[in-house]
Amino acid sequence: MESERYRRGWEVLRALDPVQSEKVLANLREIAPDFAKYVVEFPFGDIYSRPGLDLKTRELTAVAALTAMGNASPQLNVHIGYALNAGSSREEVLEVIMQMAVYAGFPAALNGLYAAKEVFQQLRENTAGQ
Amino acid sequence: MESERYRRGWEVLRALDPVQSEKVLANLREIAPDFAKYVVEFPFGDIYSRPGLDLKTRELTAVAALTAMGNASPQLNVHIGYALNAGSSREEVLEVIMQMAVYAGFPAALNGLYAAKEVFQQLRENTAGQ
Amino acid sequence: MESERYRRGWEVLRALDPVQSEKVLANLREIAPDFAKYVVEFPFGDIYSRPGLDLKTRELTAVAALTAMGNASPQLNVHIGYALNAGSSREEVLEVIMQMAVYAGFPAALNGLYAAKEVFQQLRENTAGQ
Amino acid sequence: MESERYRRGWEVLRALDPVQSEKVLANLREIAPDFAKYVVEFPFGDIYSRPGLDLKTRELTAVAALTAMGNASPQLNVHIGYALNAGSSREEVLEVIMQMAVYAGFPAALNGLYAAKEVFQQLRENTAGQ
Amino acid sequence: MESERYRRGWEVLRALDPVQSEKVLANLREIAPDFAKYVVEFPFGDIYSRPGLDLKTRELTAVAALTAMGNASPQLNVHIGYALNAGSSREEVLEVIMQMAVYAGFPAALNGLYAAKEVFQQLRENTAGQ
Amino acid sequence: MESERYRRGWEVLRALDPVQSEKVLANLREIAPDFAKYVVEFPFGDIYSRPGLDLKTRELTAVAALTAMGNASPQLNVHIGYALNAGSSREEVLEVIMQMAVYAGFPAALNGLYAAKEVFQQLRENTAGQ
Repeated sequence: MESERYRRGWEVLRALDPVQSEKVLANLREIAPDFAKYVVEFPFGDIYSRPGLDLKTRELTAVAALTAMGNASPQLNVHIGYALNAGSSREEVLEVIMQMAVYAGFPAALNGLYAAKEVFQQLRENTAGQ
Repeated sequence: MESERYRRGWEVLRALDPVQSEKVLANLREIAPDFAKYVVEFPFGDIYSRPGLDLKTRELTAVAALTAMGNASPQLNVHIGYALNAGSSREEVLEVIMQMAVYAGFPAALNGLYAAKEVFQQLRENTAGQ
Repeated sequence: MESERYRRGWEVLRALDPVQSEKVLANLREIAPDFAKYVVEFPFGDIYSRPGLDLKTRELTAVAALTAMGNASPQLNVHIGYALNAGSSREEVLEVIMQMAVYAGFPAALNGLYAAKEVFQQLRENTAGQ
Repeated sequence: MESERYRRGWEVLRALDPVQSEKVLANLREIAPDFAKYVVEFPFGDIYSRPGLDLKTRELTAVAALTAMGNASPQLNVHIGYALNAGSSREEVLEVIMQMAVYAGFPAALNGLYAAKEVFQQLRENTAGQ
Repeated sequence: MESERYRRGWEVLRALDPVQSEKVLANLREIAPDFAKYVVEFPFGDIYSRPGLDLKTRELTAVAALTAMGNASPQLNVHIGYALNAGSSREEVLEVIMQMAVYAGFPAALNGLYAAKEVFQQLRENTAGQ
Repeated sequence: MESERYRRGWEVLRALDPVQSEKVLANLREIAPDFAKYVVEFPFGDIYSRPGLDLKTRELTAVAALTAMGNASPQLNVHIGYALNAGSSREEVLEVIMQMAVYAGFPAALNGLYAAKEVFQQLRENTAGQ
């Protein structure tokens, strides 16, 4: 039985990328099914569903934080894709990542740029393959 | 003699908060005058002056990164003030900080909220004192 | 109206230290009341309330993580107190903190030990004052 | 000639997993033989051999710290295995990792869960292969 | 048109390793050509070109920081090579990395040593192939 | 009874600053006397006593790592003082700290410069008071 928070969270994840989101959740369910539920409920059902900040800005700040921390490569890749789906241009995503050189150093920005390159390339291949 | 990059950077810093910016630079000049120059030139003259991302989003992503990293308290305080001056509402700043609980944990978000509380309080006192 | 998750979370926080917990929440409510609710609901109502790990171990692993990260001093202090209330001896808390020298370096362990010293001293003063 | 600290440290590492421990040490000896000795002597000979905290809790707090820091993937994998050998159930290990979402964010917990999934799978294959 | 800062920065990068440096820059130019320019201008044209610290010490402190942070593996590999080219012996590089166990924990030092092992091995293969 | 490693470690600490070193150790002994012993034995008796890297470079790399990590303020202050006593000029210390802007971001470098300013000021006052 899904909670209201889960439904709300899944609506956000569906708007960001239903295929990618389900892939992450399916992967999680194999090891920690309750945690897959929490991932939908708290970050997306509680936080992202709040009014007061648009989804595009939420995703650009997620890309900023993940680039700056530099220790969560799979999540950075996912959120670069989410940021594009939330209405950011590739240019805006790259600007946010480059700016992280200021706050977290050049290596963090470089690795963020390499991640963006890979995600953009993957999107081109997916489009070409359709 | 100021470089073009310095002039461009100072324009950004002046738009964000000329009094606070000068205070940071004056403090730096006492220990490392060249570095005070670099702070204007690279982060603000090179990066923030680029088209492709508005100043408001630049400051919200700065607040995101500094909250998530959790190890740069004086700079987080400065950028919370800059974010407001760049056109963010207090609500938007608080939303960004709260969202960092997702990416960097609750302690990072809590300390970010305490920083915002202090900055907002200081602004109220400054206004009341005028 | 409190959710079931909130009630469950508050039961955990009450067991850990009702006075300290209420102090943290009251402080948070002044700047971000919804976030004060989330702090009770997700960490304590969802995670800490799960069977499968006793409260004492939950608090010792919290002390470990906060010592290792080294960027959340107020929360480390609170969780050192919680760990004692959850049944750890002072010796066990100190052993966990010292062990963090291995995983996060000596400075992290030193600062954790200084935090423990301060918390233990505060507890002595509180007891003496009664 | 082995020091008393080395012998004590190796006893701990042997209890945790002699095959895996020797593999790590052999790898280290090829690049920095003295450091392979220090790894046995200080973390395990000095710290882990201390009374006052049981081996199981030592390993669960190691898993907590390594998950929270998120930048030491090979060591996290090793210590998930050590934690099981020190008497933790898989459920306990997963609970500790999930709890790190609270202190270090969801990406840290997710990557910790993926690491556990991999280690558990490897153990199944090793057992099946016997 | 190259700036004076770019020329100065490239001189440093050429002294450190022209082939490796060009490889990093070419990779960056494909995703963010302006940023490839900044990487030459600020870190190497502004900072590394300053008198007051020799290139060898600059690279050993870079290796120290990257080992301690533990979240920038490609850059650590590059700077281990740069450190050797700047006049450090392999022994000095290994000493710096081992010392990071003190400040950032054993996992950071271990992963730094594995990186050095890989870089040294690559250098041997390159030499053997000539 | 002091171990040979302790005697060797104390010789290093005495060379770096006997008064400051004893102050740190005395503070530690009040909460964790065994750990005060380890601090002398492993970092200074084992690591710093190794040939292959001079004390001055050891301290400059310590300042680099502590500045870059940004979460160990008391230890950064101590090691800035040690670096000077190990033969670095103030200029060299400032160069290392400024360079950390490249690897760990401008906030880390700024906070490192503020720490240096404070340490240099304290040294001037101590000298003036003699």
